[in-house]
Amino acid sequence: MELSSYLQEKKIIIDKYLEENLPLENQSPSIIHRSIRYSVLNGGKRIRPILTLMTAELLGENYTMVLPAAAGIELIHTFSLIHDDLPSMDNDDYRRGKLTNHKVFGEAIAILTGDALLVMGLEFICKNAEIKGIKNNSIISAINYLLEMLGTKKMLGGQVEDISWNNQEDDDNFIENIYSKKTSALICASLKTGAILSNATKEQIDALQVYAEKLGLAFQITDDLLDLKEDKENNSKPTYPEIYGLEKAKKMVLLYSNQAKESISIFGEKARLFHDLADFIVNRKK
Amino acid sequence: MELSSYLQEKKIIIDKYLEENLPLENQSPSIIHRSIRYSVLNGGKRIRPILTLMTAELLGENYTMVLPAAAGIELIHTFSLIHDDLPSMDNDDYRRGKLTNHKVFGEAIAILTGDALLVMGLEFICKNAEIKGIKNNSIISAINYLLEMLGTKKMLGGQVEDISWNNQEDDDNFIENIYSKKTSALICASLKTGAILSNATKEQIDALQVYAEKLGLAFQITDDLLDLKEDKENNSKPTYPEIYGLEKAKKMVLLYSNQAKESISIFGEKARLFHDLADFIVNRKK
Repeated sequence: MELSSYLQEKKIIIDKYLEENLPLENQSPSIIHRSIRYSVLNGGKRIRPILTLMTAELLGENYTMVLPAAAGIELIHTFSLIHDDLPSMDNDDYRRGKLTNHKVFGEAIAILTGDALLVMGLEFICKNAEIKGIKNNSIISAINYLLEMLGTKKMLGGQVEDISWNNQEDDDNFIENIYSKKTSALICASLKTGAILSNATKEQIDALQVYAEKLGLAFQITDDLLDLKEDKENNSKPTYPEIYGLEKAKKMVLLYSNQAKESISIFGEKARLFHDLADFIVNRKK
Repeated sequence: MELSSYLQEKKIIIDKYLEENLPLENQSPSIIHRSIRYSVLNGGKRIRPILTLMTAELLGENYTMVLPAAAGIELIHTFSLIHDDLPSMDNDDYRRGKLTNHKVFGEAIAILTGDALLVMGLEFICKNAEIKGIKNNSIISAINYLLEMLGTKKMLGGQVEDISWNNQEDDDNFIENIYSKKTSALICASLKTGAILSNATKEQIDALQVYAEKLGLAFQITDDLLDLKEDKENNSKPTYPEIYGLEKAKKMVLLYSNQAKESISIFGEKARLFHDLADFIVNRKK
């Protein structure tokens, strides 16, 4: 199957699962459930949960085997976006062309919505334990690894460094280090969740983790390049291409994309979609 | 053993475990680890984790069997306090006589510290899986129940209702309903975590849950009564005694405390500390 059809097909599956499994808007207290649905059901690309499904399929399992966990990861991704957008953090008014959560529901509800999505995301992953063929110790390792990727050494630590950014850093790798924590960490968790629940070998998990790390970096720098073409908000911090220049940024995207592809050579032709995705990331227009 | 000695002894054990297992202040990014230690190691009473240890001992297990999970629950309790104190929520400047987290570290770090404590609390609970004699499916049920108690039907939902409070509610049970969600839910999780990890029977778990629910209500209304004696901050919402009067509040504390004691009659004399705790809650001076 073509990558674009695959992404479209799996996005529909994720969207449907979320639509059906999120609390309804009229459930009390209504405001937080409206807020959750507003931010989750917003036309996102669903790259992270799709990577979880793709990994299960790569390892010979049916994607339905990991669907609740995949959807849970998307909820956790949404938690991180809502908190990052808050006035005291990046102070963003728009996301994907829509008002950010706190602009619609206020700051207090936005904070609680983020909290609730982190909790609910983990509940979805626990739900995956009910699926036939999933081992309890796999669920615990998947949750453990995800929590590690979210914690102060990774995603949340990256956000702390991002908001403490002061242009004084002389470490050349400073911004890559933040991208690795803020973007690659959750992408690593997306693939590793799929891999652990599909009983991958250590060698397979290691290869997929390198792929995820490199894909995350290529993905984030491409985002920066695409953002350059748009109007920037006042509160924006400098991005990779602004610091290192357009040429180096483009070169690094290509490098990381190639490293991602090389990392999964052990899977051979079966990993074609993963190759195509690494190419797609480089060439995407939005 | 006397209850007061028991509480003191177990508080020391919890404090020591937290002190030794929280990331050190100099670990990067330093600011969030300083912030975590500031709010967690602040002389709290540790009632919730002590209840987890007490439950394991009631069921014939050694308290060390559930210590990581108990400490994890205290971290999650601290997460909820930090977010509740934020300017957009209760806007509190002081907690236990010390400046609140956001007054010291700023709003952004306070939000991220809360997020990190929720993640770390769950990591501590997962760590409990490494303790000999703990079953993987017990860990998953304990996490599942805890997440349910934290979600929008319970703790976070209670906080949403609390900040949406508008004095227009004509439901007599409105404030008790909020207390049940905001206070009893996490106390239920504290006992149930201890019970599940100690392989309690369904009958035992049901009894302990009623105890926790009633103890939580008695605890919260007593807090209100104690707060009446202190200077109130401007932003305070009306509390139980302010709405229902001093006499009714005192009567209800006694009623809930008695109901708590009755609920655990199946344990007989072994549950003496639980009886004493229900009495202690009523009579405590702070």
